[in-house]
Amino acid sequence: MRPVQIISRKDSISLSKIMEEEIKKMVSIFHGKQRYINYFLAGFADGESSFSVAIIKHPMQKFGWMINPVFQVYQHERHREILELYKFVLGAGSIYRKSGTHPVLNFSIDSRRNLLEKVIPFFERYPLVVKQQEFNKFKEILHAMERKEHLTKEGFIRLVTLAYSMNQQGKGRKHTLEELLATIN
Amino acid sequence: MRPVQIISRKDSISLSKIMEEEIKKMVSIFHGKQRYINYFLAGFADGESSFSVAIIKHPMQKFGWMINPVFQVYQHERHREILELYKFVLGAGSIYRKSGTHPVLNFSIDSRRNLLEKVIPFFERYPLVVKQQEFNKFKEILHAMERKEHLTKEGFIRLVTLAYSMNQQGKGRKHTLEELLATIN
Repeated sequence: MRPVQIISRKDSISLSKIMEEEIKKMVSIFHGKQRYINYFLAGFADGESSFSVAIIKHPMQKFGWMINPVFQVYQHERHREILELYKFVLGAGSIYRKSGTHPVLNFSIDSRRNLLEKVIPFFERYPLVVKQQEFNKFKEILHAMERKEHLTKEGFIRLVTLAYSMNQQGKGRKHTLEELLATIN
Repeated sequence: MRPVQIISRKDSISLSKIMEEEIKKMVSIFHGKQRYINYFLAGFADGESSFSVAIIKHPMQKFGWMINPVFQVYQHERHREILELYKFVLGAGSIYRKSGTHPVLNFSIDSRRNLLEKVIPFFERYPLVVKQQEFNKFKEILHAMERKEHLTKEGFIRLVTLAYSMNQQGKGRKHTLEELLATIN
């Protein structure tokens, strides 16, 4: 997880008025049809989003690690409107400015409630092609957490292993799966 | 333009049978509705495609340069199916393997006829959000070439200047706009 910098409240307020107009404009190019917008957003997400499950060291959690599923869409700040459209359509999520030199915004949803009630039903109805398999794993992890499987040792190991099988087999993670599992055995 | 390597004819034939099945599968997840597929593909293209106009040194052309519009979608070779879906829906284009170390495939259409009759009408009907402005410039260049504007000096300068205003102001081009225009004055 890269550190993020929240846009100031003042900035948010002034932007939101502009964005209301932008959203109206975008909705109008889809002839006001929600279903068309949704298929479009599914297609856009299939290229530009990520379904990922961070495993974060956390001494207060049962096995010392927190399982943290997150849905994200990135976009250059000059096209903030597309991220606002996701926020508007999904009715959840926040838009952050990523730290670093590139002017990139990040729309993200990490509330398990919103992931289960908003993100998953959306992409079940408006399907992904390229990211279908990642999405299925993401969904399985969230459903298993809902059943509290991650609170048993077997369940925890299964879910962490599944998370590591996503997004190029855990490439870019701080700890290898072996290192992580060694801490709980 | 990066050099590309065409997949051998034999390879194409064996792949096409698999792809026919893949396309059927993809069409079925959209309940067989062409319109839903099209909005999805517009959304995917809004993130993962490029509308670009290469200006290539060419001694046989009137001003020594060829104006070459091209629509492209890139994808990792493990998801060739999405590129096959574009080819199927647009009824045009080729899929190439990009040279280099990354196993990336490139779907591209550079026939002016196909761009005018297939690509432009598609994205007029199934709109882009992020790439709308690039698309409008792309369309303007193609329509102007259809009227043979690029064969007059004024028209040529206008179209090349417009091409250079696309995709981050000509960033990554071999020649600056000034260098290019100096050769024709």
